[in-house]
Amino acid sequence: MRRVDGAATPARADVERAAERIAGYARRTPVVEVEPGLWLKLETLQHSGSFKARGAFNRILSAREAGLLPAAGVIAASGGNHGLAVAYAAGTLGVRAEIFVPEVTSPVKVAGLRALGAEITQTGAIYSDAYEASVKRAADTGALELHAYDQFEIAAGAGTTGLEILEQTGGVDTILVAVGGGGLIAGVTAAVAGRARVVAVEPELIPTLHDALAAGRPVTVNVSGVAADSLGASRVGRVAFDAATAAGVRSLLVSDDDIIAARRELWRSYRIAAEYAGATAPAALLSGAYRRSPGERVAVIVCGANTDLATLA
Amino acid sequence: MRRVDGAATPARADVERAAERIAGYARRTPVVEVEPGLWLKLETLQHSGSFKARGAFNRILSAREAGLLPAAGVIAASGGNHGLAVAYAAGTLGVRAEIFVPEVTSPVKVAGLRALGAEITQTGAIYSDAYEASVKRAADTGALELHAYDQFEIAAGAGTTGLEILEQTGGVDTILVAVGGGGLIAGVTAAVAGRARVVAVEPELIPTLHDALAAGRPVTVNVSGVAADSLGASRVGRVAFDAATAAGVRSLLVSDDDIIAARRELWRSYRIAAEYAGATAPAALLSGAYRRSPGERVAVIVCGANTDLATLA
Repeated sequence: MRRVDGAATPARADVERAAERIAGYARRTPVVEVEPGLWLKLETLQHSGSFKARGAFNRILSAREAGLLPAAGVIAASGGNHGLAVAYAAGTLGVRAEIFVPEVTSPVKVAGLRALGAEITQTGAIYSDAYEASVKRAADTGALELHAYDQFEIAAGAGTTGLEILEQTGGVDTILVAVGGGGLIAGVTAAVAGRARVVAVEPELIPTLHDALAAGRPVTVNVSGVAADSLGASRVGRVAFDAATAAGVRSLLVSDDDIIAARRELWRSYRIAAEYAGATAPAALLSGAYRRSPGERVAVIVCGANTDLATLA
Repeated sequence: MRRVDGAATPARADVERAAERIAGYARRTPVVEVEPGLWLKLETLQHSGSFKARGAFNRILSAREAGLLPAAGVIAASGGNHGLAVAYAAGTLGVRAEIFVPEVTSPVKVAGLRALGAEITQTGAIYSDAYEASVKRAADTGALELHAYDQFEIAAGAGTTGLEILEQTGGVDTILVAVGGGGLIAGVTAAVAGRARVVAVEPELIPTLHDALAAGRPVTVNVSGVAADSLGASRVGRVAFDAATAAGVRSLLVSDDDIIAARRELWRSYRIAAEYAGATAPAALLSGAYRRSPGERVAVIVCGANTDLATLA
């Protein structure tokens, strides 16, 4: 996975600037204290149904501030949460958006993206084909690429979730974050550096950060399982790898059964309808993969809700 | 509908005492500001899936404080949100609970109540039969009756929702509240008296408060429509009628189509899976039945989420 802008890992100040920039565009989502010292951060309530809207707004607004937003608008490759977020943010800001998705993308998802005002190109058998086509298209048109995770502004925007957690809880010891490509954990780690510990949680069937930490560099993993639609990067981003390594983040693995059980429990006990990716960090607590110490203050990010409710009914 | 304890309408101080009493038992549910000056209060996240847990905890804890909790425990009639709330609160407090439900109650609902530790009696063709049987049983055993809405402590407990709204938003001008039997609006009206205006929202097909205000007294209405499972009282409670009359509350009506559309919009825009009753107050805004003035600060209570997700998928 090439890095689109070669930028460094964001620092806390970058996340704070992102927070100012996206205020009024991204929602300040609430936390709910579900037992003393345990909070859920409800990114399920974010625009476009996942935390991804934060990074999309931050990258587009950063470019606009710098006078670098091209007439061709923005471009991204994703039939999932990133695509929805880019289409939503661009539509809100009145910016042209092209979204590349693989041919297998369902008509429902394509219609959803179109309804947000994006121009859709269906190309290639798998995601990486659509991605490569989007990179080529961007080179032709000059459109601003929005990578799904491995960009400075995307990560800095996602990190605003971490700033809000500290403000809304009065401070926590630990934040549990699901990892796919790692945009969220890169930003959150920067946001809370020196103030809270960040722990990664990944599906056993998509251990991108876990295997990268073991290998000492991002490595390609097989991708499968229930959360693959949102956590299905085949390799952790460089931005996330560098951030996680610098912060000494460890990665816990949870099984698909753990994720499925956590998703049911989120609905049963809290009436939160999360997607599998959104239930992945909670699964670490419910499965015992992560055990709170006595008195430990823990926040868990429920990162998305773009789910088919029929699978939870 | 007889009044079980003959108590007066609660005042703000009663709601404040209820808030102290139920702290740590009922959840302090979050609000989310969905546009500047417009908040949703997410009682969907409350224990047992609706605001009803607040009143159930308040009535049981009040009795325990006063040394008046009988050995026979508590008793209620409801196969819906009130039954779930009573079973949950009693189970949490280690109090015996008997729940009477009509024979038509689905095995799934009965199993759900049993799983919370309640003893279930299925009797009578319709709700009022089960209710009358529960009153007779209470007379035999001495169990504490928990009415679904028309009791002082039930209303005062529900009103804690209103106190939280004022604290969490920094103050609002208006609070929109769905009405069935009226326990929630009675308590919220007391909680915010002199600080915010309360507006009732009811389904056109269950206009209990609307018709009572027109008639100058509680009257029996026909009950039907999508929200009847939770807002299906056939007559507004005396506690609610007195509170609404004293506060000059007006009642807006929304159609079933409005409620259905609002429920879909809550999912589409916010990923909140609400039940029809929970979408009733939001429906007043979405349908235009209530129009915000420029700069008006409005909170809308999304009061429950005990819904079959298949109907939203």
